[in-house]
Amino acid sequence: MNARAGQSGSLFLGIDGGGSKCKVVLLDANGQLLAEGLGGPANPLRGMKVATDSIISATQQALTAAGLGFCEMARLVVGAGLAGVNMPQYFRAMQEWQHPFAELHLTTDLHVACIGAHQGQDGAVIIAGTGSCGLASVQGQVLEIGGHGFPYGDNGSGAWFGNQLVHHVLLHHDELGPATLLSALLAEQLGTAETLAIVAHFMHATPTIFAKYAPLVFVAAEQGDAVAMEIVRIGAQHIENMAMRLFHLNPPRLAMIGGLAYKIVPYLNDAVRAKIVDAATAPEYGAVWFAKQQRQNLNPVK
Amino acid sequence: MNARAGQSGSLFLGIDGGGSKCKVVLLDANGQLLAEGLGGPANPLRGMKVATDSIISATQQALTAAGLGFCEMARLVVGAGLAGVNMPQYFRAMQEWQHPFAELHLTTDLHVACIGAHQGQDGAVIIAGTGSCGLASVQGQVLEIGGHGFPYGDNGSGAWFGNQLVHHVLLHHDELGPATLLSALLAEQLGTAETLAIVAHFMHATPTIFAKYAPLVFVAAEQGDAVAMEIVRIGAQHIENMAMRLFHLNPPRLAMIGGLAYKIVPYLNDAVRAKIVDAATAPEYGAVWFAKQQRQNLNPVK
Repeated sequence: MNARAGQSGSLFLGIDGGGSKCKVVLLDANGQLLAEGLGGPANPLRGMKVATDSIISATQQALTAAGLGFCEMARLVVGAGLAGVNMPQYFRAMQEWQHPFAELHLTTDLHVACIGAHQGQDGAVIIAGTGSCGLASVQGQVLEIGGHGFPYGDNGSGAWFGNQLVHHVLLHHDELGPATLLSALLAEQLGTAETLAIVAHFMHATPTIFAKYAPLVFVAAEQGDAVAMEIVRIGAQHIENMAMRLFHLNPPRLAMIGGLAYKIVPYLNDAVRAKIVDAATAPEYGAVWFAKQQRQNLNPVK
Repeated sequence: MNARAGQSGSLFLGIDGGGSKCKVVLLDANGQLLAEGLGGPANPLRGMKVATDSIISATQQALTAAGLGFCEMARLVVGAGLAGVNMPQYFRAMQEWQHPFAELHLTTDLHVACIGAHQGQDGAVIIAGTGSCGLASVQGQVLEIGGHGFPYGDNGSGAWFGNQLVHHVLLHHDELGPATLLSALLAEQLGTAETLAIVAHFMHATPTIFAKYAPLVFVAAEQGDAVAMEIVRIGAQHIENMAMRLFHLNPPRLAMIGGLAYKIVPYLNDAVRAKIVDAATAPEYGAVWFAKQQRQNLNPVK
C-alpha cells in the first residue's frame, strides 16, 4: 500500500464527467496526487446506469493505481462536475444515487472547469469542444450560457463546425454553393467523394462524430478557402459573443478550454484575447476544490 | 365485391412512402380509383420491417375498402416511390423483399411526386415538407438535388425552420441574440418559457418534431418580427436556389409540394414563381403511372 494513501484522514476524488468520457483524480488530504482514472461518459443524460458505471469504473482504476482496495471508496470525499446536471431532473436523479462514497458533492462540468481554471478565484471559462458553453463566476454571482445541445445550440463547437462542413460540401456537390477545398479534404478522410456515401456516413451521426471533422475547416481556412474562412468567421463570432456576454459580470480573466479552443482563439477580437489566461488546473482538480469548499460550508470551523 | 374491382385484368397500386407515413391508391385497369389506404413510415432507412409492414398494412386497408380479399394482393401491379431508395443499399434491400404482389416497380418518392405533378410530362418538383429536395425530369434527363437529411441538409425544410426557431429563442434567452416574438410563440405552444424546459423538449427531437414548430416562424414574420423575417428570407433563399438549379434543365413547369410549400412560395422571386403550377395529381398516382411505364418498357407492344 502506498505510504501516503495509507495515512488516516480523508481522501479526495475529483470527477470531470462529460458526454464522452470522465476523468478522475485521487488526492490525499494535502492535495498530493495519488492516482488518476479514466471512464466512459458520466453524463446522466446518457442514462443513470452508464453514468454511475463510468464513475465507479474510473474510481476503481484510480484506487488500484494508488495501491488501495475498493473498500476505500467509503473513505472518499468526492466532488463531481457532470454534464447535464444543470437540468433539475438529472441533478435530482444523481443526488438520489446510493453511491459508495463518504460524501458526494455535485455540480456541473462547466462549474468545476471554471473553479479549476482559476483555482476558485473569480473568472470566466468557455469550453469549445464537442459542444460549447460558458460560465463566469464573480463575487458569488454566476452566469451560465450556451451548452444547450446540438443542433439548435452549441454554436462554434466541434459538432457545429463539423455540421457546417458537411452542409457546405453537400451544397457544393449539388452545385447549390461554391466549390470548396472542404470537399476534397472530407473525401480524403472518408475515402470517398460520392454524395450518397457522405450522406450514409453522417446520416445518424452524433455530435462527437461531427466534431471529429471540425479540424478540416481550420485546415481549409488556413489555405485561404473562402467557404471555410466564412464558417470560421461565423463560428468564432459565436464564441466571441459568448465571451462578451460573460464580460457583463466583469470577470478578471477568461480561460478557453476544450479541444477546439486553441484553434478559435486567434480569430477572437483583441478585447477578448486580452483577458485570456491559461487554465491553472484541469476541471477534475476544480471538482476536488468544489468538494472541499462545500464541506467547509457545511461544517464551518468555529 | 365491388363490380369494377371484380373484373379480370390488372389492378394497380400506387405507393407514396415518406419518412412519416405512406399513402396508397388502388386503381383498376382503366385508372379508376377503387380505394385508398394509409400506413406508417415506408422509408427503408427506418428499418425494412417497419417499411414493409407499413406498405402491407396500407395495402390491406385499400383492398378491404374496395371489397377485395387480401389474396388479391397477388394480382396487384405496384409502383412504389419510397424515401431513402436513392441510396443503393436501401434500393437493393427493398428489391430483395419477397413481396406478395404480382409486380413491384421501385423508385424514389421524389420521382413519383414529379411524375404525378406533371402526369409524366417534363417538369420539376420541389418538396418542402419535413425535409426538402428537388427533381427535374426533362427529355429523359433527370436531376435530383437536396434531400440529404437533417441537420446538415434539408435547408428550407420544416425541420430546418423549426431548428432555426429553437436556435434563435435560446440565443434570446442567453442574451446572445436580439429579443424575438418567437420566444413568446414557442412558450405558448410548449406551456413554458423556461430555458431548461425548452432544451429538455428538443433534446432528442426528430426532424418531424422540429418541423411541427416551423409555422411559428411564418406567424412571427407576418407580424414583422425581424429575427423571424431573416429566418424566412434565408429559408426561402435555399428553396429559390434549388429551383434556379433545377431550371438548368429548362423544365417547362415547377410544382411545389409538401406542407410548407404554400408558405414559402410568396417569398420566392418572380422567375421561380412564373414557372409554378399546381400539381396535377398526388405522388401516389405518379407511382401508378411509373409502374405502367416500367411495365411497358419491359413488355413493349409489338
